Amino acid sequence: MRLTEALQFFPGIGKKSAERIAFYILSNPQDGKKIAESVEEVLSKIKFCNICGNITVEDPCSICSSHERNRTTICVVEKPMDVFAIERAGIYDGLYHVLGGLISPLDNRGPDEIRIEPLILRAKKEDLNEIIIATNPTTEGEATALYLQESLKEFNIKISRIAQGIPVGTDLDFADDITLLRAMEGRREFKD
Amino acid sequence: MRLTEALQFFPGIGKKSAERIAFYILSNPQDGKKIAESVEEVLSKIKFCNICGNITVEDPCSICSSHERNRTTICVVEKPMDVFAIERAGIYDGLYHVLGGLISPLDNRGPDEIRIEPLILRAKKEDLNEIIIATNPTTEGEATALYLQESLKEFNIKISRIAQGIPVGTDLDFADDITLLRAMEGRREFKD
Repeated sequence: MRLTEALQFFPGIGKKSAERIAFYILSNPQDGKKIAESVEEVLSKIKFCNICGNITVEDPCSICSSHERNRTTICVVEKPMDVFAIERAGIYDGLYHVLGGLISPLDNRGPDEIRIEPLILRAKKEDLNEIIIATNPTTEGEATALYLQESLKEFNIKISRIAQGIPVGTDLDFADDITLLRAMEGRREFKD
Repeated sequence: MRLTEALQFFPGIGKKSAERIAFYILSNPQDGKKIAESVEEVLSKIKFCNICGNITVEDPCSICSSHERNRTTICVVEKPMDVFAIERAGIYDGLYHVLGGLISPLDNRGPDEIRIEPLILRAKKEDLNEIIIATNPTTEGEATALYLQESLKEFNIKISRIAQGIPVGTDLDFADDITLLRAMEGRREFKD
């Protein structure tokens, strides 16, 4: 495969940028070699945690094996990047479960193609109070959330969904209609 | 005032665009006259509703005088444009109250400068079940929401706040940390 084509796999890199990077690599072979080695090193070390499905160096991952986290709550996300975003925000101290995709009939991806069965096994085995479904508020994310809720309701575990609404710091009149609807539906009473 | 300076009052119009519009008006005086007349006509007709504070042609406005709306709920917003956004979405059938601004110590704008007192009078006089505070989730919007909650809690009316969270259709990993926090805090249990 030609380098310029391969580089366009990167998100945000188009044909022009790929060409610019390719010429940079050709003019700076030492840098190019370092990049290739880093990519190979990462690929050789990184694996998936057999419990939560997140990317990790050690299996099980540091979150699944930690005893400082709240082990009675699982936050279900689509992909490793979502774990990264929530961890970076420092707003959650429970465990995770990475589905590795969302149910999407249009892409021919059903429940069996993502890690739903392992989640049901965890719900059976682990001593859980709550499963927070944090898939994206997109069509696929919502479909997956509903499917999960159906699959998990037989267990005596609280199943919750992250809030949809107006993002913090933005203006109401920039919100689309469905976001306004969700913000209105999801309104919460002030409590003293 | 010079036309190019006046035109820059419009949102989204900078110096370049203002100059382009000014030249257009000079070359098409008939169009220029129509625009000036439309602006003057609107300004002569439009007033503020003495009940909700929204812009209107008739006073009271069509929403305040309608008997097809739910007259026991008031949605409190910052500006007329917010009423427009919520009405366009067709998600709400109650009444409104337009504050005409937000509390902002930095801009030297206190509670007395916006229409909070008229809202308290409405809470006293009208037969209300709920007041939904739909100010923006910004610093000023939150400060105003808290102030309103304090001012209204003596009445026997449910005071609620619109939901903050991930906007519909977007990706979790694009959300900023505080929005993620609000989405997590505001999570709701699935109900059958």
